[in-house]
Amino acid sequence: MRPVAITGVGQTPVREHWDVGLRELAVQAIWAALEDAADPKVEALFVGNMLSGMMASQEHLAVLIADYAGLRGIEAVKVELACASGAAAFRQAVLAVASGAVRTAVAVGVEKLTERSIHATTEGLASAADADYEAAMGISFVALNALLMRRYMHEYGYQKSDFAPFVQLAHENAQANPNALFHFEVGRDQYEKSRMVADPICLLDSSPVADGAAAVVITAEETRAAGPQIPVWVHACEIGTDTIALDNRKDPLWMKGVEVSTRKALQRASLDHSRIRLFELHDAFSIMSALSLESAGFAEQGQAVRLANEGIFQLTGRLPMATAGGLKARGHPVGATGIYQIVEAVLQFQQRAPQPLQLEGVEYAMTQNIGGSGASVVTTILGRNKP
Amino acid sequence: MRPVAITGVGQTPVREHWDVGLRELAVQAIWAALEDAADPKVEALFVGNMLSGMMASQEHLAVLIADYAGLRGIEAVKVELACASGAAAFRQAVLAVASGAVRTAVAVGVEKLTERSIHATTEGLASAADADYEAAMGISFVALNALLMRRYMHEYGYQKSDFAPFVQLAHENAQANPNALFHFEVGRDQYEKSRMVADPICLLDSSPVADGAAAVVITAEETRAAGPQIPVWVHACEIGTDTIALDNRKDPLWMKGVEVSTRKALQRASLDHSRIRLFELHDAFSIMSALSLESAGFAEQGQAVRLANEGIFQLTGRLPMATAGGLKARGHPVGATGIYQIVEAVLQFQQRAPQPLQLEGVEYAMTQNIGGSGASVVTTILGRNKP
Repeated sequence: MRPVAITGVGQTPVREHWDVGLRELAVQAIWAALEDAADPKVEALFVGNMLSGMMASQEHLAVLIADYAGLRGIEAVKVELACASGAAAFRQAVLAVASGAVRTAVAVGVEKLTERSIHATTEGLASAADADYEAAMGISFVALNALLMRRYMHEYGYQKSDFAPFVQLAHENAQANPNALFHFEVGRDQYEKSRMVADPICLLDSSPVADGAAAVVITAEETRAAGPQIPVWVHACEIGTDTIALDNRKDPLWMKGVEVSTRKALQRASLDHSRIRLFELHDAFSIMSALSLESAGFAEQGQAVRLANEGIFQLTGRLPMATAGGLKARGHPVGATGIYQIVEAVLQFQQRAPQPLQLEGVEYAMTQNIGGSGASVVTTILGRNKP
Repeated sequence: MRPVAITGVGQTPVREHWDVGLRELAVQAIWAALEDAADPKVEALFVGNMLSGMMASQEHLAVLIADYAGLRGIEAVKVELACASGAAAFRQAVLAVASGAVRTAVAVGVEKLTERSIHATTEGLASAADADYEAAMGISFVALNALLMRRYMHEYGYQKSDFAPFVQLAHENAQANPNALFHFEVGRDQYEKSRMVADPICLLDSSPVADGAAAVVITAEETRAAGPQIPVWVHACEIGTDTIALDNRKDPLWMKGVEVSTRKALQRASLDHSRIRLFELHDAFSIMSALSLESAGFAEQGQAVRLANEGIFQLTGRLPMATAGGLKARGHPVGATGIYQIVEAVLQFQQRAPQPLQLEGVEYAMTQNIGGSGASVVTTILGRNKP
């Protein structure tokens, strides 16, 4: 595979975008990314999206977006992998360029979740679970995560308030990100009094569903035009999977998909954990942060919450996470989230993160996008230097 | 890109499969393909499917199928490109293997369209059109194709009965294919008396929606196990696109996506039209056969129907099509159709087509899978020899 670089990024603010449809939202992000890359010649478009069919009665989305973005005629496909659809589309774009099939591709993630009733959104999101054996029983994703969180607290002796640091750091970081949905601070006291959704998960444990689109331009080394931005190199993008249904797993507190996907990515990049200085993880719920950190190998089992309380994951800590607010406070437009994570990491490498979010000296960053409760996991490693 | 071969194929009969769900249907095809390839070590699964969300409230389908197929943990994504989802998944599988990212992949197409009411199916299929500007007006795919057929008849002076040969040959060929949905002959008289659906499209002009799954195993040259079957080589798999909405096209009778995709595929394979001896095209409606043949360059504009009446496309003709019954008589389980086409072409190369369908001396075959009314087109060229 030939080396592949990201040469342009674009994003819309994460909001309730009542004034634009799926296609316009995607086009805004694509155009921003193309401008950022100094208008390269794009040969293929990979669209990450989960729910355009169920929420907007629109399949065949990729071609529609290509046309409206002014890219009529190019190769275009939609990639679906539940909440990991964005990073999965990025993976396909990387394969297309790395293989030599195309020189330049765009990966865009787009989702509109606020267009219909919250019941429709909940039903849509539940389609990431096993429709016959989980969703049919009436279980929602917050309920599945509540089971995990309750078990985790029981197993390792934590109190609910111990999870506060995950939420606090996300909201603190989001305040400086103009594209984030939330711009308010969360105090420990506020977290503890937050309205219960599915015990022990409260409102402030949950990432908000919202609308958004983010895009990246990917180019092969030898054809990279001298764009205005420093290229950021793709050192790995690997997928690991697990059972969809939680009850099929031997240990529900161990996300095998995270373990496999992280290991494959580190192997592909020839790195170990110590080289990763930024981890944009999939903090859809506080418990997902803890399980991700542990299954990815950044914390011993049962220790992630303790490390969070020690401040390890804050901007000034050893392994910053959610530096632009994460899913928790930037917002979680599901099929777009994986691309938002990559865009945010790219901005860090290019010294374009808003102050005071800018990290210094990051050589490698990992982004991790998860579908379902750890059923599919896409782990990407980006680097400052060419692989 | 390294050479890639198909080493195993599998398919379920196209039927109304009331007794099995999406996952079981897909698994049947995957297991058949794996057995055919002598159980290779599979590293990635690409699922072509259009309507699992709208029809079965099941997204995140790829991981579910991987798990149920006994492939838990491997990379798995769903690829959606309306009725071309199957071949689009094949394209991604080819890129994954050709790039060197994985050694062996499975592409499976699966669709269940008969599980709910015909209204739900019609609504689902309409999501391949522009939801805001076409489907919202109440237009269905048969109506869109009726507009095209009427225009074509007007432009080139054909009568409706002139289209009979496309239907007759599909039904004639399907009789020998045990996996086809229909096993009855259609006489010219019968075609002319067929019930009108959307004038001038009658019931016998329309491919039947149904349930089905088909799968192929793809391997890189250097890792190909000495399986029992002769490998069939992928010489090209290219995507071309056009506007979704018909009214955005300069000439609705010219399918630009077909033209571009065919040209790209022939260029990639370094072939001209004369070398293609089998064309499995997307005969969703009789008019689509005519437009495909012309836009692909196998007939002058307005001449495809005349050539059909001359018998060119029959088994004994110069360019056989729909040799296993085509979409028309094998049936059209939308997201699976593109893989069925490839499976049928592979069987031809391996002398495994049922008699009297077996062609002799085919060196190259083209399969063409279309999404929408020509909006996205995946053209594959398979060959007997290594590229």
